[in-house]
Amino acid sequence: MVTVKEEPMTPHTENIRRLAGEIASASPRGLVVVHGGGSFGHPLAKRHAISEGYSSPEQVPGFSRTHQAMVALNRIVVDALLDASVPAVSVAPSSFIVTDGGRIGEVDFGTVRRFIESEMVPVLYGDAVLDRVKGFTILSGDQLAVRLALDLGADQLIFGADVDGVYTADPKLDPRARLVERFSLSGLDEMVEIGDALATDVTGGMLGKIREAASAVDAGIVVSVVNASEPGRVLKALRGEDVTGTLITR
Amino acid sequence: MVTVKEEPMTPHTENIRRLAGEIASASPRGLVVVHGGGSFGHPLAKRHAISEGYSSPEQVPGFSRTHQAMVALNRIVVDALLDASVPAVSVAPSSFIVTDGGRIGEVDFGTVRRFIESEMVPVLYGDAVLDRVKGFTILSGDQLAVRLALDLGADQLIFGADVDGVYTADPKLDPRARLVERFSLSGLDEMVEIGDALATDVTGGMLGKIREAASAVDAGIVVSVVNASEPGRVLKALRGEDVTGTLITR
Repeated sequence: MVTVKEEPMTPHTENIRRLAGEIASASPRGLVVVHGGGSFGHPLAKRHAISEGYSSPEQVPGFSRTHQAMVALNRIVVDALLDASVPAVSVAPSSFIVTDGGRIGEVDFGTVRRFIESEMVPVLYGDAVLDRVKGFTILSGDQLAVRLALDLGADQLIFGADVDGVYTADPKLDPRARLVERFSLSGLDEMVEIGDALATDVTGGMLGKIREAASAVDAGIVVSVVNASEPGRVLKALRGEDVTGTLITR
Repeated sequence: MVTVKEEPMTPHTENIRRLAGEIASASPRGLVVVHGGGSFGHPLAKRHAISEGYSSPEQVPGFSRTHQAMVALNRIVVDALLDASVPAVSVAPSSFIVTDGGRIGEVDFGTVRRFIESEMVPVLYGDAVLDRVKGFTILSGDQLAVRLALDLGADQLIFGADVDGVYTADPKLDPRARLVERFSLSGLDEMVEIGDALATDVTGGMLGKIREAASAVDAGIVVSVVNASEPGRVLKALRGEDVTGTLITR
């Protein structure tokens, strides 16, 4: 929700400014922000097949252009946070993370940790990164956020979505879709099987996020999904207040 | 020479494009590019006293804004290189380098190395970085370039300047200033003493670069200073051809 989905390279300035204001109002200690690619990174990554890995030298400038697009979006996000008096600082994932077959293996978050200790708010993003197996790939903001939460010992992990949380079906397509306030991971595999048979995503399009989130839930981190497009939801979640959304549980 | 010195936040587009073209023409193997702050980073770093280290929370947004300005300049440089068909990729120093009292201590250039192995051209820059002693500081492009050359085992290190090389005095102020084609580090301290007595920089403003360069010279790296504002000089230097400039020797 930080970009306009249908418009390439178009930031959703209104949402970005509002969310920066909500973060400023909540001003939680030890916050790390991770944003996705939206209409900046995704179209380029897709056009150059970056997540499929290296297969041709022609992809190389595409890899770099994908990162450049993310840098451009990140700059807008960080500037908005600074304008809202949040001591945000940009951290570029591809400058220090190399994945192993699409997954973060060994990683040193020492700089991120030190920014937090310096009372700054590191702002990272889904990025085009080098990969030890595939040459390069796309590291999703979701995977990165979960790994940061695990490695930094976070208490809470909030996923911002453009719907109210995890649904029983895609709320944008199915009028019967119902918000799940507590989503239990225990029945996930079985649910996915039923969903596959019915050709529906039983999580309303959140399956990727939920699968990433599982390890954070297992580590005792409070993981929730809230609608970041709805004013006040992220603010409430950051303050630990009751808010419309989904709590993911084991 | 990648920015217009007197104009804040103004890239020297003509020089950037020409230099990108020279790099494309030479297309040396294993190239790493490091650029400075010019009119992007310097005014902000100065205004917020970043190189003096942390003394007040008001500096924190200034630290981040200094980095943001460098990201903006780096984006222009990388885009120009990509437009010239150089497989450039941006690498953010502050995302993985933390200095010790203004100097790079331990550092992991693994990602930079891997970009080179992937036949990409990492583009780094002088940056606002965290510091273990001072809280934060400015890491100069010169210090970073020398350390990269040492750690990556470079054969050659070329400093781009806006004068022809090392002079006997400031060529912009003193008409008697003479270009030194081979500058020996052995007599440097003595020369500096004489220069101090005469209140002149005996290197024509290159003292900082030369002092940084010493360890690279000692490691057997061919270190030279050429005028990057003069078309063709960087191209010749990259090709290892005879070029007007200064070779720094022990």
